Amino acid sequence: MTIITKMSPEFKLIQQFFTKPNQHTDLSIGDDAALFQVQAGHQLAVSTDMLIEGTHFYPDVNPQTLGWKSLAVNLSDMAAMGAQAKWATLAIALPEVRPEWLESFAKGLFACADKFGIDIIGGDTTKGSLSISITIMGETPINKALTRAGAKAGDDLWLSGELGNAALGLQQLQGKQSLPEPYVHQALADLHTPQPRCALGLALRDIASSCIDLSDGLLADLGHILKASEVGAHLSLNRCPVNPAIANQMSDPDIQTAVLAGGEDYELCFTAPSTLRASIDQLSHDLGLTITRIGAIHSDQELTVLYDDKPMTLSAQGYDHFAQP
Amino acid sequence: MTIITKMSPEFKLIQQFFTKPNQHTDLSIGDDAALFQVQAGHQLAVSTDMLIEGTHFYPDVNPQTLGWKSLAVNLSDMAAMGAQAKWATLAIALPEVRPEWLESFAKGLFACADKFGIDIIGGDTTKGSLSISITIMGETPINKALTRAGAKAGDDLWLSGELGNAALGLQQLQGKQSLPEPYVHQALADLHTPQPRCALGLALRDIASSCIDLSDGLLADLGHILKASEVGAHLSLNRCPVNPAIANQMSDPDIQTAVLAGGEDYELCFTAPSTLRASIDQLSHDLGLTITRIGAIHSDQELTVLYDDKPMTLSAQGYDHFAQP
Repeated sequence: MTIITKMSPEFKLIQQFFTKPNQHTDLSIGDDAALFQVQAGHQLAVSTDMLIEGTHFYPDVNPQTLGWKSLAVNLSDMAAMGAQAKWATLAIALPEVRPEWLESFAKGLFACADKFGIDIIGGDTTKGSLSISITIMGETPINKALTRAGAKAGDDLWLSGELGNAALGLQQLQGKQSLPEPYVHQALADLHTPQPRCALGLALRDIASSCIDLSDGLLADLGHILKASEVGAHLSLNRCPVNPAIANQMSDPDIQTAVLAGGEDYELCFTAPSTLRASIDQLSHDLGLTITRIGAIHSDQELTVLYDDKPMTLSAQGYDHFAQP
Repeated sequence: MTIITKMSPEFKLIQQFFTKPNQHTDLSIGDDAALFQVQAGHQLAVSTDMLIEGTHFYPDVNPQTLGWKSLAVNLSDMAAMGAQAKWATLAIALPEVRPEWLESFAKGLFACADKFGIDIIGGDTTKGSLSISITIMGETPINKALTRAGAKAGDDLWLSGELGNAALGLQQLQGKQSLPEPYVHQALADLHTPQPRCALGLALRDIASSCIDLSDGLLADLGHILKASEVGAHLSLNRCPVNPAIANQMSDPDIQTAVLAGGEDYELCFTAPSTLRASIDQLSHDLGLTITRIGAIHSDQELTVLYDDKPMTLSAQGYDHFAQP
């Protein structure tokens, strides 16, 4: 669609950066549509995201890490559904053709695609302020998908990985934090190159009663599970998994906010019957990934966060996402 | 993904404009991904497009027609593949929340979705300069999809509908044309609310040897078929279907350019064995849609356009897309 400006040949040529051999696809980039087959007995899971300069990333972002992250955050949605991600389309707008920028972006994107076995099956490149839209597709056996609506009273509440690193890394970039030197690298790595929990998501198909990935912060995203499942929860801030470098700073309100509401952790938050604790501990061992039980689901539709066994006030600044859902 | 700016509740609320009952979908907007099943024996066809203010449409565009067109141009890709479109995701960036604009956009989008039986299964709304990205999905029986790579020497070359109306409508808006009064309405309607040739695309599954939809103009898009099929073609400008209002102006270079290279016609251009002419005439009658035979495919990889039986020079301004593929 080109009402006003016809694309220059250069804008068409840059599609070459995004055309690579595929594993799961019958017909890829280069026709009016891509073609692939979904395994018998499976549903297709589909999710879409749009990332905008100035809203989601700074103009001086490293294009290689942006390429990784653009795909990784979509893979995180597939993990949260228990779906095996296989295909993605990419639409990208750029103010002008910058081959070295695009080559670097593609390098990061394909590092992620190759690691997780994703075919990039469609691309649209156009002129405009920098924005990226990815649609990701994956397979789940019929009726095996993990949704937000399955948590039951009595279920345990679990988290993978560590909370707060990405938010603290961003605060460090913004000059609002001065993190200790070895930790700052971890926090920035978690901010720029999040690791989607794809293997965990697949393994949770027969374990979790509900699941979500943490993009907007624990309280906001857990709130989606509670609302969809029509239940409540209590959890302990003291049990929330954090990096050892900040474990002794949990009384700091800024750290508390980063852990509970920071966003961009891209860890999985899930619920499971308490009879499955041994299975989850075994899974944690098998995957080499910390999985921490931080609380439980109950039937009255409220969320209580305890710190040193005392309920916290959740309407404080920084928890607005949850206070005003 | 929200590095810099946390979305206001308003930005989340506007997703409500895009959530409606579905026909083909097991789980729609509201979880980490949508879920649906592809019919046994079918491939999924997937295509993505990004539309940017200032590149593809003017800031003062009517949001309702923009909503229609955003989906219609994607449906045109499905038609060109012979795919039955069923599902679409929408990502939209807006500089600020304008509920009346969004409501109007959604009205146009759903007018098109309802007419063609499309479920809107995913949505992302974010803050940024106005841009729209749609990914469309449809089904084709395995090995029945129409691609660009199947045209054979001796095949006829066909076009649906009329050429040049959208380009002339845009020139009218830009003050570069002064079209006669009754025709200007048709030209603007074709520009703003193109009618994707979905029924024709499905009917061509057993007829066409190759197919493409006309987004960049006849010469550019036919060029894609010729390149992918490794063939050439000759066609007659005199036979190209145009609106009766401009039929007597075919000697005007501006009209010639609009017809051959104008773009945005969203008609189907296809090839078919000459033994199937009667079937195509019958199809034209059944669909109430003009389908015109404008030329033929030959084996040497060149494109010749005849006007009054004389070859035209295709490197002239306006045909650059073809001259510099």
